[in-house]
Amino acid sequence: MILVSDIEAAHDRIRPYVHQTPILTSAQLDRETGAKLLFKAEHLQKVGAFKARGATNAVFSLSDAEAGSGVATHSSGNHGAALARAAQLRGIPAHIVVPENARLAKTDAIAGYNGQVIRCESTLAAREATLSQVIAETGATLVHPYDDLRVIAGQGTTALEILAQTDQLDSIVIPVGGGGLLAGSGLVFRDRSNALVYGAEPATADDAYRSFKSGVRVTEHTPKTVADGLQTTLGEHNFSIIRDCVDDILLVTEAEIVAAMRLIWSRLKQVVEPSSAVTLAAVLKHPELFKDQTVCLILTGGNVDLGDLPF
Amino acid sequence: MILVSDIEAAHDRIRPYVHQTPILTSAQLDRETGAKLLFKAEHLQKVGAFKARGATNAVFSLSDAEAGSGVATHSSGNHGAALARAAQLRGIPAHIVVPENARLAKTDAIAGYNGQVIRCESTLAAREATLSQVIAETGATLVHPYDDLRVIAGQGTTALEILAQTDQLDSIVIPVGGGGLLAGSGLVFRDRSNALVYGAEPATADDAYRSFKSGVRVTEHTPKTVADGLQTTLGEHNFSIIRDCVDDILLVTEAEIVAAMRLIWSRLKQVVEPSSAVTLAAVLKHPELFKDQTVCLILTGGNVDLGDLPF
Repeated sequence: MILVSDIEAAHDRIRPYVHQTPILTSAQLDRETGAKLLFKAEHLQKVGAFKARGATNAVFSLSDAEAGSGVATHSSGNHGAALARAAQLRGIPAHIVVPENARLAKTDAIAGYNGQVIRCESTLAAREATLSQVIAETGATLVHPYDDLRVIAGQGTTALEILAQTDQLDSIVIPVGGGGLLAGSGLVFRDRSNALVYGAEPATADDAYRSFKSGVRVTEHTPKTVADGLQTTLGEHNFSIIRDCVDDILLVTEAEIVAAMRLIWSRLKQVVEPSSAVTLAAVLKHPELFKDQTVCLILTGGNVDLGDLPF
Repeated sequence: MILVSDIEAAHDRIRPYVHQTPILTSAQLDRETGAKLLFKAEHLQKVGAFKARGATNAVFSLSDAEAGSGVATHSSGNHGAALARAAQLRGIPAHIVVPENARLAKTDAIAGYNGQVIRCESTLAAREATLSQVIAETGATLVHPYDDLRVIAGQGTTALEILAQTDQLDSIVIPVGGGGLLAGSGLVFRDRSNALVYGAEPATADDAYRSFKSGVRVTEHTPKTVADGLQTTLGEHNFSIIRDCVDDILLVTEAEIVAAMRLIWSRLKQVVEPSSAVTLAAVLKHPELFKDQTVCLILTGGNVDLGDLPF
């Protein structure tokens, strides 16, 4: 398991390579929600997502001997670019297995950081088989997108920054997909703050919610949501931390996600992914939980296809 | 005429009511342009545009006797909302003449600040006749959107902030429509900086360019551009200042504006109006002017119709 001291060590390790992102506010959104909202702007992070933190921590945690053979992962999203960038910074190879239906913008980003893109069929079985083969051939170290303690520790550095940037918070709302950010940040908040910790999840990708409520990790599910960054399955390490450190997980509908995304674009003037908007959607859906409170919401990423917006 | 000391007085006057907006940067855009770009984020200003500055300065410059009868203007854009907000802050009436084809979002914004919306036909003649009638009936003070020295002084406070927020600049690039921001900011830069001052304007709304090049203000023109905030005609006070304080005006095509807007959304993750993007379009079009330089670009506003984007 990991301790907050591991997350503090991660923070020191990655500080030269990532941004300390700002906290954004909107008087108008505060009026509309009846709460004081503090948006942690991880969409302004390197590679446009908090994923830069975990990937960078994982790569710079490796011994020189391990690092020499490079790193590998499978990803159709921000983790692939984040890992390629971290590897480039350390001067080692990155092998990124990408499903053949991945968007060109994603593979271009990986290639832009000199990552090696390996294409495979878009099934989970094909991804895992291809990744195993790459690792067998290269000796690269696997850096899983979220079910990895180094990655979880890296994502948790977001929470350390939030605590340093804010005064008393009543609660924090964090999107949950695989659970890297929620686990890492939840751990920090449970240890260092009295704020309530909420996960926010699409109702049509509710494996974390069902796992949390039943106490048994759900591994079989077929998510389908506009919040494409949250279609992953909750990780094992992630679940065991989330079970202990999270107060509740709130579900939101697809329409609520799109409406909240439109509000963030209109009021905050920020380009965020649908995944980032589940937090505001949850606050709007549950005024009884957040009224008159100071609430931090993590905007997780800003990589959208401008030619294919949901509004 | 106005002096930089008037702009400093405006800055003191409006400081309690407007944001000091941040400067944003992008390592990737710097690589793509070969320059160091500093984006002054006036789309994060109150009412989502720099127009809050000029309107607030005009309203708070009025004597109590003048203020009692309120203010009036015609506007289909950000100035109307900015004037309504400033009047609400001072507790006086605002009468905003709006063409009947104005977007609902614009009139809603005015009404949201308790501004009185007066509709008229969408011709310039109808607007001016309606405005004259409103002023005759109410005794309100006209606050023109740009051809007004109090408004120009207010917009110039943007430049005072930029100088306080940055080190040595080689140049600054400013959108020009009516010329309020370019005149006010140009005046400050001519007096306090050695940086070159460029206006940027759509080629299909090039009255400022033609006025600047010929030395005679062009008043007859039929602009048509995606940068709807720049369709206004260069003002008289504005032109006389711009003639003295601006080094050149650069024209950009519609396609160049849309491409630059897409880059700002993708790289900076900022929602900006097409009018804001003429500056980056000009930098991309003229690498010979900006290569290896430190360049400030003003992002003027972020009020877009998300259901009607140009990409």
